[in-house]
Amino acid sequence: MAENKGNFESSNKTQIDRPQTLAQKIIANASGKKYVTPGEIVTCQLDLVLMHDSSGPRRVKSRLEELGATIFDPQKVVLVSDHFVPATDPESAEILALTRRWADENQIAHFYDMQGICHVMLPQQGHLKPGMFLVGGDSHSPTGGAFGTFMVGIGATEMTGVLATGEIWIKVPETIRVNWDGELPKGCSAKDIMLFLCKKLGMNNNYKVIEYAGSTIANMSMYERMVLCNMSAELGAKTGIIAADEKTLTWIKDTGQDVAKDALNWQSDEDANYARVYHFDANELIPQVAAPHSPENTHPANSFEQVTIHQAYIGACTGAKLSDLHMAAEILKGKKVAPGTRLLIAPASAKTTEWAAKDGTLSILTEAGAIILPTGCGACAGMGAGAIANGENCISSTSRNFKGRMGSPDSNVYLGSPYTVAASAIAGVIADPRDYL
Amino acid sequence: MAENKGNFESSNKTQIDRPQTLAQKIIANASGKKYVTPGEIVTCQLDLVLMHDSSGPRRVKSRLEELGATIFDPQKVVLVSDHFVPATDPESAEILALTRRWADENQIAHFYDMQGICHVMLPQQGHLKPGMFLVGGDSHSPTGGAFGTFMVGIGATEMTGVLATGEIWIKVPETIRVNWDGELPKGCSAKDIMLFLCKKLGMNNNYKVIEYAGSTIANMSMYERMVLCNMSAELGAKTGIIAADEKTLTWIKDTGQDVAKDALNWQSDEDANYARVYHFDANELIPQVAAPHSPENTHPANSFEQVTIHQAYIGACTGAKLSDLHMAAEILKGKKVAPGTRLLIAPASAKTTEWAAKDGTLSILTEAGAIILPTGCGACAGMGAGAIANGENCISSTSRNFKGRMGSPDSNVYLGSPYTVAASAIAGVIADPRDYL
Repeated sequence: MAENKGNFESSNKTQIDRPQTLAQKIIANASGKKYVTPGEIVTCQLDLVLMHDSSGPRRVKSRLEELGATIFDPQKVVLVSDHFVPATDPESAEILALTRRWADENQIAHFYDMQGICHVMLPQQGHLKPGMFLVGGDSHSPTGGAFGTFMVGIGATEMTGVLATGEIWIKVPETIRVNWDGELPKGCSAKDIMLFLCKKLGMNNNYKVIEYAGSTIANMSMYERMVLCNMSAELGAKTGIIAADEKTLTWIKDTGQDVAKDALNWQSDEDANYARVYHFDANELIPQVAAPHSPENTHPANSFEQVTIHQAYIGACTGAKLSDLHMAAEILKGKKVAPGTRLLIAPASAKTTEWAAKDGTLSILTEAGAIILPTGCGACAGMGAGAIANGENCISSTSRNFKGRMGSPDSNVYLGSPYTVAASAIAGVIADPRDYL
Repeated sequence: MAENKGNFESSNKTQIDRPQTLAQKIIANASGKKYVTPGEIVTCQLDLVLMHDSSGPRRVKSRLEELGATIFDPQKVVLVSDHFVPATDPESAEILALTRRWADENQIAHFYDMQGICHVMLPQQGHLKPGMFLVGGDSHSPTGGAFGTFMVGIGATEMTGVLATGEIWIKVPETIRVNWDGELPKGCSAKDIMLFLCKKLGMNNNYKVIEYAGSTIANMSMYERMVLCNMSAELGAKTGIIAADEKTLTWIKDTGQDVAKDALNWQSDEDANYARVYHFDANELIPQVAAPHSPENTHPANSFEQVTIHQAYIGACTGAKLSDLHMAAEILKGKKVAPGTRLLIAPASAKTTEWAAKDGTLSILTEAGAIILPTGCGACAGMGAGAIANGENCISSTSRNFKGRMGSPDSNVYLGSPYTVAASAIAGVIADPRDYL
């Protein structure tokens, strides 16, 4: 497969009932059926519902009150304050206060207040298990798919119904299978895979599930797998999913949770029908950078060397987990951020900050000149610290570089892996991290 | 001296010409005179000018341009971005971009961009030496007096003239001498001294210099002395000052700067005239807390035990230096922040964060549940992270608890030492730190 164009297999097999993809199996189970077929509309019972402070209580409170409805099961709701944290003005302070009151009044079992970004908190706190069917009130909810779950994002209106009923209707989506085999080269990470895929597959894979498989994924850490499922949102997909393996179970056990005996049964059938199947060779990947103003505007990192960087940003659910901080530290150790460039790092959870303080990572990062921000969605969502000015260029380990998302509409955001962001912070221009490893 | 009421000496000596206070000596030197007398108006040459992003370039740029004036000496200007950092919206990003452009266009020799709070950056970077006469565009500029300088805060209009001429007129102020002797008890710090003095001396010591002396001050670290001079602003004073000693010189040498041979000559004369002289016994001090909405509304910390704390905040020039973080860590080690209480810590400089990462302090603080914020004035100035909501109570190691300063006008801010703030974070109510040491 020259030039890593992806080996496309048209899936013209006759639709058969029994073999199912992993996504179909989870939907079938959640809807009380043995099988489901893409295109079919079914109603599913929810194993868990994720909400945050932005699309959560402040949006659903009065609607639920008008309906006279109560939460279907407060034990199955995870609420996370991650957008307006910490409050930067009285208005955001009020939103957080409302969130806290609502959690208390509704006896929400799992409320993580300023403890991290919701998509990272779910697995960190052991809420995800293979085969679960979940929704989250955020577009990056597909992240949960890295743990063999089917998890999709919904809006605040739909969330109201979900909270009242504990169920949701869904049209069973087709699955696109994306296989990656081989070893990721030095300086490449899951983020490079996803930027590459945004260009290769485009951002209109609407209502499809992206299932990631192959030896590259098998060798990946859970943190890195989360990046794949997370950025399935940028592919326009309904969600992303990765079948559980021993690594998944080890993670879950490490959080103190039990694992069901049949956890590893949640796999796509050998002869399941896919809308499309791709094969990519990880060995051929090189570091990728998405230019403004879209993740699909991706090119090799080494084609951007003349772009001055004012701000380098390592943050968000997709780009500031402990593994991401370790990538940055690998590049930054003993080096200094370039004059005229600022490097901001917003760890994805409070625990991430704590672990990075303990293992020496924060010491390396701050010595290099990085500024550590509190955990939260932050500048990725146009909130908190890290807004950029007119004419400024930012390189960011986040997932989206839409115009004006991180500050001025006349600023430019480039996306890259934590390796690439850290290398660019040192160089003061967009840099290929392989030159710094 | 029972009950530590302060031993007041009315200073009825006949005014004599020769003996002078330290402040008079510095003013005399800066105005090219041998002696100055309180009440006299003189014009002084400036050794250094401090500006920040809030009252600085954005306020003086167009005025200087209208005047056709250039900076009197760009080598003598220290510019610090500390208020709008990191930017939280496009507007603050624009203010920072303007600050950076102005620094560049005017070839400002010392521009510290997002590196810390200006009053901490000056000594950290070795800019202060005994006998200097300085102004700063911020009300807490008296902090510099801890290094045997005369440093006062000015507004943006006056700053324009200062930048154009390198000089400023001043009415020579009288000095109030405040002597503290004895050893500070466990759990007490310079912040307790200042809260105690806000109550004792009131906040209307207008146009007076407060000179701190005595064995307590001699035994204090430079960091702690900075708190005394800093909060002279809350006493309503023109500035605070502490004569240099070997500790001062050691600090300066540690920053890589030379020390003049006559540095220790900058002392008040034995028989100098003071407007008032106070004597306090440090041994009698207990931890102090200022209730809303004024630093002079101070009472012993142990008289507030029923006050629920929603937010505990360790930050600002006066309350988040490395010594302050160490005090907090001493209390927090192995403990946890109370449920329902959040503890935010904004180190006073990027170096402070770096040192705290390296020496293990950040690990202790984050393990206890503290959220580390980027350096900057932050919530103390009603900016950045840490705004509080209606009806919330905050205990803070900052210097001012005026109504609405840290968020909603219907919130309540209590002031205490880092010990007291940390103890209250654990207790969830205002606590006496002696119970946690």
